[in-house]
Amino acid sequence: MGTEEQNLPAKDARHSRVFAALDRFRIEIPSWGFANTGTRFGKFLQPAAATSLEEKFADAGEVNRLTGCTPTVALHVLWDLPQGESDVARVRALEAEHGVRAGSINPNLFQEQEYKFGSIANPAPAVRKKAIGHLLESAAIAKALKVRDVSLWVPDGSNYPGTQSVRRRIAWMEEALLATCEALEETQRLLIEYKPFEPAFYHTDIADWGMALHLARVCGPKAKVLVDTGHHAQATNIEQIVAWLLHTGSLGGFHFNDRKYADDDLTLGSIDPYQLFRIFQEMMSAGENADADVAYMIDQSHNMKGKVEAMVQSVVTAQELYARAALIDQKELAKLQDACRLVEAEELFRDAFWTDVRPLVRAWRTARGLAEDPLSALRGGGYVERRAEERRERNSGGSSAYA
Amino acid sequence: MGTEEQNLPAKDARHSRVFAALDRFRIEIPSWGFANTGTRFGKFLQPAAATSLEEKFADAGEVNRLTGCTPTVALHVLWDLPQGESDVARVRALEAEHGVRAGSINPNLFQEQEYKFGSIANPAPAVRKKAIGHLLESAAIAKALKVRDVSLWVPDGSNYPGTQSVRRRIAWMEEALLATCEALEETQRLLIEYKPFEPAFYHTDIADWGMALHLARVCGPKAKVLVDTGHHAQATNIEQIVAWLLHTGSLGGFHFNDRKYADDDLTLGSIDPYQLFRIFQEMMSAGENADADVAYMIDQSHNMKGKVEAMVQSVVTAQELYARAALIDQKELAKLQDACRLVEAEELFRDAFWTDVRPLVRAWRTARGLAEDPLSALRGGGYVERRAEERRERNSGGSSAYA
Amino acid sequence: MGTEEQNLPAKDARHSRVFAALDRFRIEIPSWGFANTGTRFGKFLQPAAATSLEEKFADAGEVNRLTGCTPTVALHVLWDLPQGESDVARVRALEAEHGVRAGSINPNLFQEQEYKFGSIANPAPAVRKKAIGHLLESAAIAKALKVRDVSLWVPDGSNYPGTQSVRRRIAWMEEALLATCEALEETQRLLIEYKPFEPAFYHTDIADWGMALHLARVCGPKAKVLVDTGHHAQATNIEQIVAWLLHTGSLGGFHFNDRKYADDDLTLGSIDPYQLFRIFQEMMSAGENADADVAYMIDQSHNMKGKVEAMVQSVVTAQELYARAALIDQKELAKLQDACRLVEAEELFRDAFWTDVRPLVRAWRTARGLAEDPLSALRGGGYVERRAEERRERNSGGSSAYA
Amino acid sequence: MGTEEQNLPAKDARHSRVFAALDRFRIEIPSWGFANTGTRFGKFLQPAAATSLEEKFADAGEVNRLTGCTPTVALHVLWDLPQGESDVARVRALEAEHGVRAGSINPNLFQEQEYKFGSIANPAPAVRKKAIGHLLESAAIAKALKVRDVSLWVPDGSNYPGTQSVRRRIAWMEEALLATCEALEETQRLLIEYKPFEPAFYHTDIADWGMALHLARVCGPKAKVLVDTGHHAQATNIEQIVAWLLHTGSLGGFHFNDRKYADDDLTLGSIDPYQLFRIFQEMMSAGENADADVAYMIDQSHNMKGKVEAMVQSVVTAQELYARAALIDQKELAKLQDACRLVEAEELFRDAFWTDVRPLVRAWRTARGLAEDPLSALRGGGYVERRAEERRERNSGGSSAYA
Repeated sequence: MGTEEQNLPAKDARHSRVFAALDRFRIEIPSWGFANTGTRFGKFLQPAAATSLEEKFADAGEVNRLTGCTPTVALHVLWDLPQGESDVARVRALEAEHGVRAGSINPNLFQEQEYKFGSIANPAPAVRKKAIGHLLESAAIAKALKVRDVSLWVPDGSNYPGTQSVRRRIAWMEEALLATCEALEETQRLLIEYKPFEPAFYHTDIADWGMALHLARVCGPKAKVLVDTGHHAQATNIEQIVAWLLHTGSLGGFHFNDRKYADDDLTLGSIDPYQLFRIFQEMMSAGENADADVAYMIDQSHNMKGKVEAMVQSVVTAQELYARAALIDQKELAKLQDACRLVEAEELFRDAFWTDVRPLVRAWRTARGLAEDPLSALRGGGYVERRAEERRERNSGGSSAYA
Repeated sequence: MGTEEQNLPAKDARHSRVFAALDRFRIEIPSWGFANTGTRFGKFLQPAAATSLEEKFADAGEVNRLTGCTPTVALHVLWDLPQGESDVARVRALEAEHGVRAGSINPNLFQEQEYKFGSIANPAPAVRKKAIGHLLESAAIAKALKVRDVSLWVPDGSNYPGTQSVRRRIAWMEEALLATCEALEETQRLLIEYKPFEPAFYHTDIADWGMALHLARVCGPKAKVLVDTGHHAQATNIEQIVAWLLHTGSLGGFHFNDRKYADDDLTLGSIDPYQLFRIFQEMMSAGENADADVAYMIDQSHNMKGKVEAMVQSVVTAQELYARAALIDQKELAKLQDACRLVEAEELFRDAFWTDVRPLVRAWRTARGLAEDPLSALRGGGYVERRAEERRERNSGGSSAYA
Repeated sequence: MGTEEQNLPAKDARHSRVFAALDRFRIEIPSWGFANTGTRFGKFLQPAAATSLEEKFADAGEVNRLTGCTPTVALHVLWDLPQGESDVARVRALEAEHGVRAGSINPNLFQEQEYKFGSIANPAPAVRKKAIGHLLESAAIAKALKVRDVSLWVPDGSNYPGTQSVRRRIAWMEEALLATCEALEETQRLLIEYKPFEPAFYHTDIADWGMALHLARVCGPKAKVLVDTGHHAQATNIEQIVAWLLHTGSLGGFHFNDRKYADDDLTLGSIDPYQLFRIFQEMMSAGENADADVAYMIDQSHNMKGKVEAMVQSVVTAQELYARAALIDQKELAKLQDACRLVEAEELFRDAFWTDVRPLVRAWRTARGLAEDPLSALRGGGYVERRAEERRERNSGGSSAYA
Repeated sequence: MGTEEQNLPAKDARHSRVFAALDRFRIEIPSWGFANTGTRFGKFLQPAAATSLEEKFADAGEVNRLTGCTPTVALHVLWDLPQGESDVARVRALEAEHGVRAGSINPNLFQEQEYKFGSIANPAPAVRKKAIGHLLESAAIAKALKVRDVSLWVPDGSNYPGTQSVRRRIAWMEEALLATCEALEETQRLLIEYKPFEPAFYHTDIADWGMALHLARVCGPKAKVLVDTGHHAQATNIEQIVAWLLHTGSLGGFHFNDRKYADDDLTLGSIDPYQLFRIFQEMMSAGENADADVAYMIDQSHNMKGKVEAMVQSVVTAQELYARAALIDQKELAKLQDACRLVEAEELFRDAFWTDVRPLVRAWRTARGLAEDPLSALRGGGYVERRAEERRERNSGGSSAYA
């Protein structure tokens, strides 16, 4: 343990809580976070962006090597596993090569032209059948890869009032999700994501956590709700939704990112770090094992920042905010809350947020044989420059949804 | 049937649908809509405002006399029935005198100083006990009055992160609401309202329909969800929530009003009439009897408009928008929706909105022996002027939450 | 004049006001509204979409032929006029062929890879110089085409706090816009658009009307503000902004569309028709000539609806809402407003909104030799089917900002 | 200088910057922050709340004694200075007794029954005249007290579309504000506040910074814009508005508070501390003297927290966030911004936010002879308990805007 740690202002109990928290903290990173992405107005191309599953695994491996807490990488079925179960061997080889495992399997229900008016909620039975087929294939891939979670975002919806029956589409979704859950092993899970809008602009079929929770209940214990922090109306109290999902035993995981406006997919903690701290505190307050079965995942679009750089920065920020939340003395806080001593409770709570936990996190990294400062280590190592050299040619040619 | 009706452009089938719709449309008006209200910056006093239960019944009776579709008046326990069950006889006499019956019974959990940190979600067991006592008394009043619905808004919440445990308060609410439901007759209902904020500004214990639905499910079939149209985050698709509540058999009723910003409690349809049309269409599309057990209620603060005038205007607007929704040929619409013929479906839908249904509504009123134009009839009858004369003295002395 | 018109319930004065209003109402349609567009999740391709300037002019001509009120088509410099001033002859020929003229000239500052960190607000002088060059070229094109307006949307901004100096970028924009205005003829105008976010997600350099107005004032009388109805924070009172721009003589024009959430670019009036009615009323209340120098333009993305179909539908909706606003007796309204007779003023105002103006608009079309129902005429004429046949092959191959 | 300071991780230059920043930081506190306030649903009364100008001065003096940086107290004309200029002598005596001076003078245009339909924007000339009279009296008081700023919030607006002419009311406001400015000395200022809604719910006459800026320009150099951090639509980038006001030389001051939803008036930094940090950074980045003529003021409603306790907590939070912003090396940041090195710029920026500046602030307090921890000192001193004893009787009797 380094000298820096010895000079920390934190008391011993807080110190141990932070180390224990960092030891258990794992966060999954998405393969698509390493590829070129953009807005409907076009993509700004990065020469080092990953252009294949191999390159995504390489980048994910680098992030895990630097941070030590991203052992799994989320995969997108259409983009990463176009051969379905036949891709399993290839994935196994990449896992061995790069030291990160396949994580949640993400079906894709938004890219095919047939899904113009919806996938599993499409009024046309043939389209729904195709979409269910894709969900079943995703479940089969998850089984073949021995992965626990199928993580599903349903982009279905409509753009104009009156053009679709919001109500009748619910039953079609129930049918599709139930079929998917039945195809899963007992130990597997279907994580149901919700989102208020985009790409649909009038109604989105699974628009909020209440709808996702209803569908999960229809599907039974294998189905859980997935909270994407960017998928809420302005001013929504997200940590409260987390509390209710914990209370009902229905919280499956998170897609972390940040936003100021809509689903901006910015790096986590970049706009409102206090909110993410509160979400972590909600997990901590539910007991040390509350997050044992909760998947922490990153879902971001690194349009402007370097992709590996942004991912490392995000992981470090997540660790630091998690560590800050670990500083809170839950018993003392509960006591002040029960006594309605508002300012004292708030000051205890914020003391953890304001404590500079970075020296302690660095000490933990040193103790675990990791780079003390992952971002500096990334810059010092020249990884991005090497990849840019290799991939530059493959990253050319733009696209704009408008042009 | 008058000549005006004969000249209507509507086809016969649409005409009958509108008459049938108007025949079954009932909307409850709140006693507090006739009293002086304001904002935290103060109240602008109206000389004709009602200052007692007697005067509220008189005003409600006048609205029903003019519109023929407001047979019940919602009552607030603390303000209207301070003697609890002992007030029953007084209410019975007023019902007989003014031709309107007692409607939903509204407990009040926000006014007592003990509720500073919450009522049924307060960490102090003694406060929770007092609050549950009030709920049980409200149920007893409802039973004594032979009224179906206890309509509950829980204002509890907190103003600052960390000062209360959002999660632990859920169980306290479950306990309180369950006890209330157990005290109700089989034919009675508890309507659970939700609201995102105000008067609590960080977390509100029942903040959205998902939380209200969970509580209703814990309570069993007597509990239903109440949708107040002003209680949603900006851009929420309210008609979609209605569709999900209908799908799950959990819709208990509405508090209608309109708003541009927060819970502004403006007269219904005054800011976004197309939205209320869509809500009514959601009800219609679920079948002619879908609203048989759904309580349509007005909940507004008439700070600026004359109180009886605003109520009549609101009832008329509600009737007209309901009648517009009744114009829609649901079978034809469903066919176009199933075929994803978007523009045609939308045009069919909007044709109903754009049709001037007012001549048809006037014809219905004439056919039913009502004033053709309730607002003109109100102005012509001098009711407000007479009341202002009687009540002017009682309506003096202002108040401001700030001053 | 047809018999339908003779049966109208409207009084004579209102009737004349509507005919006069429809006679002067012109709305510009955008060339890009006929091409395939989408979201960052991909495009749903339409076989009849326009794939060249020729096809866009053909489609615009069809819309004008059907509606009689869209004589000009807005052009995008990069997409439509890649050869700059050399494209003028081609445009002149297309104008002659299709009966619609070139309208506002729209520079494009978002598509080049150099603009990743901004165009005219980029910290790099070389990039700013390139961007100003494009603005000057756009001005030259406008001059060559003898078009009045250069319509500018500046997409610049940043995604993360601290990464750019919001303040220093203002001066760079002032310099660029001033240079552009100096290059314009006295009779030409620079319309400055504002938008709160997207594609930038933390700060957008021209985020609201106050910023656009400041820039316009720096530039002098040639610069005016452009209001895009989809470019506001939730709950913004857009008609109030219109009132202030009229008061200050700074209103240059509108980009009409509708939205429920963000900049959804839905067809105008599809989500909140009452809002557009209020905007038109703000114009009417400022006097009959208030909109003489205000450019009404449509800016929409027809991702789901057929493109020509959506454009015709939008134009018809705009006409109808404009005609409704024309029904208002402004003098009588002002009298009621001055007397603070709220409900009466509101009822007068809404009476115009609720009056079914469609028969009157049909009568006007007949009187002016136009198709009585442009949407039906479009469907009956087979235009879209013919174009789909011709263009199908060119409309293949998708794109997704994610994939 | 204490030992704690010697152990600080901060480098010397940063240390000096923080001390210099704290030496110049002053924040005005409002007299009404010590009185009982509430929501439209009622007030929760606090026994220690101030009930007179004398008690407000006493509380303000205590806050200044503990924090050393609140030398002035904002006064409300109607509530604090009912005798107008005749109150000057009383104020002078209180200043001498409690060691805090009169600060900005706040007219009150919302409380009189005559202002139901507006004050300076009311269509009735007599009401406007009365309102202007009050503004002139406020200016006279400010002159008599030798106070620099008259701080004006205009609550005027309307609740329903069509009921007022938004546009015509602008000219009436211009006239009133111009008259007020003419009555001010050259060295005095009129600060013009804006607010999107409440108590008006459809349009508020001065709704955003663009409107306030226009009015300030009409009034000339004595008029400046006042930014209340709680008076913006959701997702507004407030620090960007600050940047534009600095750029145009129009920033007069701030009303600090925090909110999650509407104008919640919570203690500053309690919901989104990163935002307030960014606002302070915007001031710092404009140069060390940028805030020399900018009035930092608190405007909060302490409905739940103890009033003096909440004020001390707010002042301490403001100092800490200001000190954090002072840690930033502006030159280095500008260099990274100009080079568009996003992540490095952001990390430099956030490093200041994450640094625990509290030990340094404590060291500064010790060096200046102040209590090291003002909140503890307040609790230890028994001030609130003594005041509660004295004032308890005067703080009884509730009020609710609804009841």
